[in-house]
Amino acid sequence: MVEPALTLTAGNGNPAGSVGTVETQYLDLPAPVRLDGGQKLYPIRVAYETYGTLSPQRDNVILVCHALSGDAHAAGYAKTPQGESTRDGFGAEDRDGTAGKGLGWWDGMIGPGKAFDTDRFFVVSTNLLGGCRGTTGPSSIDPATGKPFGSDFPVITVADMVRTERAFLDVLGIERLAAVAGGSLGGMQAFEWAILFPNQVDAVVAIASTHALQPQGVAWNSIARDSIMRDPAWQGGHYYSTGRAPDAGMGVARMVGHVTYLSAPALNDKFGRRLQFADDVRYTITEPEFQIESYLRHQADSFVKRFDANTYLYTSRALTYFDLARQYGRGSLERALESVRARTLLIAFSSDWLYPPSASREIDDALRALGKPVEFHVIEAPYGHDCFLLEEARQTPIIRQFLGRHSVAEGG
Amino acid sequence: MVEPALTLTAGNGNPAGSVGTVETQYLDLPAPVRLDGGQKLYPIRVAYETYGTLSPQRDNVILVCHALSGDAHAAGYAKTPQGESTRDGFGAEDRDGTAGKGLGWWDGMIGPGKAFDTDRFFVVSTNLLGGCRGTTGPSSIDPATGKPFGSDFPVITVADMVRTERAFLDVLGIERLAAVAGGSLGGMQAFEWAILFPNQVDAVVAIASTHALQPQGVAWNSIARDSIMRDPAWQGGHYYSTGRAPDAGMGVARMVGHVTYLSAPALNDKFGRRLQFADDVRYTITEPEFQIESYLRHQADSFVKRFDANTYLYTSRALTYFDLARQYGRGSLERALESVRARTLLIAFSSDWLYPPSASREIDDALRALGKPVEFHVIEAPYGHDCFLLEEARQTPIIRQFLGRHSVAEGG
Repeated sequence: MVEPALTLTAGNGNPAGSVGTVETQYLDLPAPVRLDGGQKLYPIRVAYETYGTLSPQRDNVILVCHALSGDAHAAGYAKTPQGESTRDGFGAEDRDGTAGKGLGWWDGMIGPGKAFDTDRFFVVSTNLLGGCRGTTGPSSIDPATGKPFGSDFPVITVADMVRTERAFLDVLGIERLAAVAGGSLGGMQAFEWAILFPNQVDAVVAIASTHALQPQGVAWNSIARDSIMRDPAWQGGHYYSTGRAPDAGMGVARMVGHVTYLSAPALNDKFGRRLQFADDVRYTITEPEFQIESYLRHQADSFVKRFDANTYLYTSRALTYFDLARQYGRGSLERALESVRARTLLIAFSSDWLYPPSASREIDDALRALGKPVEFHVIEAPYGHDCFLLEEARQTPIIRQFLGRHSVAEGG
Repeated sequence: MVEPALTLTAGNGNPAGSVGTVETQYLDLPAPVRLDGGQKLYPIRVAYETYGTLSPQRDNVILVCHALSGDAHAAGYAKTPQGESTRDGFGAEDRDGTAGKGLGWWDGMIGPGKAFDTDRFFVVSTNLLGGCRGTTGPSSIDPATGKPFGSDFPVITVADMVRTERAFLDVLGIERLAAVAGGSLGGMQAFEWAILFPNQVDAVVAIASTHALQPQGVAWNSIARDSIMRDPAWQGGHYYSTGRAPDAGMGVARMVGHVTYLSAPALNDKFGRRLQFADDVRYTITEPEFQIESYLRHQADSFVKRFDANTYLYTSRALTYFDLARQYGRGSLERALESVRARTLLIAFSSDWLYPPSASREIDDALRALGKPVEFHVIEAPYGHDCFLLEEARQTPIIRQFLGRHSVAEGG
């Protein structure tokens, strides 16, 4: 059993509410992980960060799971920040996957006195399996060939991500989780945890998430992947040593995703139909005429610099597969959730049309029908799916109150 | 003045309600059209079809304007149909731009006894300026070089399309229009007609349209265009003689458009999350796993076979520019509509999130405030923007009643 730096960021002398400066660490799993697709994957390295102090009883652990484009750097300042900061209060999904930028993608939620209070809890954040930010993924070296896996990396599922997280926590000597928390794909991982390891999860915090992506979301993800794979620079997924990458296609994928993360009213408020040059249009097709056109291109350009296209493909595929009723309930969500023993907190946002409140409501209904403890909040907020990264102030009291019922002693 | 085949399709012996078999015709304008961008474009050829009989007074003409991917073949059976028919009751936007397929894109609305009743009206349909179905556009020969214009084609606006239609009708000796009708971009053309030529338009029928695309729609169009232009096969817009075309990028553009034309509930009903192979997933990233993924790829593949990528770019740009308040009202929609003398019929669909009912309501409000005759209907229907092509039965009585107030004698 490895003893990692368990008191890495105890908050001594840090700015109020910050976990301080954090360096991502890496851990190699001792054994293969068996994947849903049948393969055994080995070796696996996991990138992770921890915040707060592990209690002697090891009973105050919260695992935080990130969304599609995220990484292990969930809170605090990166020791070696790369790239620009985009914490500008809009387009906040840039923070899911701040990718070496200064501040963690959920810094507003993790820290002393915050929603996930590092004065009480030991918060663990890992980069997911298939990732490109330190955990083994398609850009890692395939030991069979000595070259990057590329599209030879096995197709993975959310359950595979969770089994990897389980194996990782085993190495840290952590058996039980006081909570598993995440937004979007991160919430999917939390649900998988509660079903795969019902006796090891005390609470689930699933924000802006779902038990199965709705068909429109499946469509958007399919378009995003096709855009990457249709880029000739993708080269069948083996582009790493060619000096080319499918930046053009992934840029389009990112722009599609970006619009789905925001609401139409949010775009109205932020950009309206304002022109790049206020006086008139310039009669150009190749250059941006509207501010929103310029903004989207900027989003695309900055994303491709920090993210691997194959990781996008694999992660997107995993989140479209995710379907609790199909996987565990023979079509019934209620049946799928029968084994859950965790308390569940669901938060959804009124303007989120990608992961709409109705999906969380279906989970709430199913858990209630099973007599399991569940709490469901819909927050009225205009920013669409991005709210889970933006509406920190309104989520915080809900989460603190929910976690407050946990039996860990204060200051533990 | 040319006398085209004005009694082309009088409906003799045709199936009930059909205008029969129709052949697209072509007409060369006698003079240049001055464009908003400052250029004069010449020569211009216009592809068109007509249905019904022109009255001796030439006062029973309805101009029908098509949407982004449409063409002049609005009704009846094409004389030389190309490609497969996709009149399958879903994905009906395939019919805007049936591109030589058997049945016209608005055949359910145009014909004897239909909404646009060819027993009374002489219906004229043209392919819009910039098109790729017979009217001059980027794929036409540039007389200055003897080669296709490509991206040297001038950037055009909806007003430029309308001025071209005006010049075309002049050649036919048609001064006044009993109505201008269209859905989506076609409705935009109808509004432009009513403002540019207020004394020549008796009525506007604008369906699932708007006075200005909302910012989210601007975003989707921007992404679609970027997807085409990022395809290396686009070659800066000069691909016609290279044996390559930006099919990959335009396929993605089409898939994005397709999803925006449909509603999330419609996708739920039609596809749900059904897998390609009912038993389980196949663990593949490159191949479709969900039926909706396969459907989208099919839509992309069939579209690129019949449509020119540059026409997509130019038409998409024109419809994002369109903004009545900016163009004619110094920011005020009401001021922009002051010159309108036509009666206006607005129809919107409850589930249309691309051209939402709120946009039509704003037009309704502005016209009412000006004391101008306007009628506004919101049809409750689940199919999104596509409703304007699908919900023919429910639009028909509204349109017939509206047009019935026209002073043309029955049978005229």
